[in-house]
Amino acid sequence: MYTLFTSPGSCSFASHLALEEAGLPFALSRVNFAADAQRSPEYLKVNPKGRVPALATPRGILTETPAILAFLAQSHPETGLLPVADPFEFGQAQSFNLYLCATVHVAHAHKGRGTRWADDPAAIAEMRRKVPETMAACFGLIEREMLRGPWVLGEEFSACDVYLFALTRWLEGDGVKLSTLPRVEAHFARMMARPAVQRALAAEAAL
Amino acid sequence: MYTLFTSPGSCSFASHLALEEAGLPFALSRVNFAADAQRSPEYLKVNPKGRVPALATPRGILTETPAILAFLAQSHPETGLLPVADPFEFGQAQSFNLYLCATVHVAHAHKGRGTRWADDPAAIAEMRRKVPETMAACFGLIEREMLRGPWVLGEEFSACDVYLFALTRWLEGDGVKLSTLPRVEAHFARMMARPAVQRALAAEAAL
Repeated sequence: MYTLFTSPGSCSFASHLALEEAGLPFALSRVNFAADAQRSPEYLKVNPKGRVPALATPRGILTETPAILAFLAQSHPETGLLPVADPFEFGQAQSFNLYLCATVHVAHAHKGRGTRWADDPAAIAEMRRKVPETMAACFGLIEREMLRGPWVLGEEFSACDVYLFALTRWLEGDGVKLSTLPRVEAHFARMMARPAVQRALAAEAAL
Repeated sequence: MYTLFTSPGSCSFASHLALEEAGLPFALSRVNFAADAQRSPEYLKVNPKGRVPALATPRGILTETPAILAFLAQSHPETGLLPVADPFEFGQAQSFNLYLCATVHVAHAHKGRGTRWADDPAAIAEMRRKVPETMAACFGLIEREMLRGPWVLGEEFSACDVYLFALTRWLEGDGVKLSTLPRVEAHFARMMARPAVQRALAAEAAL
């Protein structure tokens, strides 16, 4: 049994959806960002970084989306979440997930989390202004170079798809029209047709 | 045989040092950032993201430091680069490496790479101004919560140590005195005493 510390609409939806797609037993624990609960003393005991996701496992806490996805895939290889038997294929999947984590998510964060990197309101506004451009560039690279189709890694659905889906959800809000990215748009529609995605979206909405 | 595309002083030193520590056969290929070679058509064929590191393997290219470190550790388990036999221990190592990649490296990048997230020179200067504060906060968390000692994961040296070393090298240039972080400082000294670190530093200096 796992407990995922999550916040609706955040990147933690990737870990939520991976658990749902894999059919693993889990509970969700909402971290109320509106009340700044991610910086409460209780939550900092779970994750001193004050962020989501955090996955409570029987052996302790794991953080960071790519690490959680890899852990679930390796702990439950029968679920096929990632190609864990082949270090090179696993490495390619991790390269993709790392791009989402360290570049795409970071680009997005400059819209709502600019105070991480600047104090001056004018600088924070300037970061926010550029987000549509940076997110369009990031997803343009995914569209042209990374998304093999029909799934990220090709014929096999994987945890890379759940992570891409979680971030694709941000695009319109970030000022990028999904229709300008036909392959990403088709991937998003393919994901929306999956029963596990619908179940996870409903569970997130009920939090 | 591996070829690592690298640039002196960058985070790619972590992958370089992992190869050296593991005693694996490799060649270095310098990507000349001063000549903007990371955006040349030739290099974009290696890594369409226009970044280092990129590791050329017999089966193709891998990018992103945590993915490269995990690949080397899994492909050569006898080197002990990471605890690959245990998904939870591997997950903890990945959580640490992901923090370096997606938070610490990103904080540092606001000093010299502000144009990724803003165009206005005043905003870029404001990002640069805040870097000593953000890097001190990041390394403060490492000092207090993450570095078990003597090595990152405890008694066993791992690829987490080579990655931490590569980023600790940036601290003084980022306006953070290493002496304010005694446990990180001791880790840095412990690393400097390793023959593989001295060999890798010499090879980097000769590029």
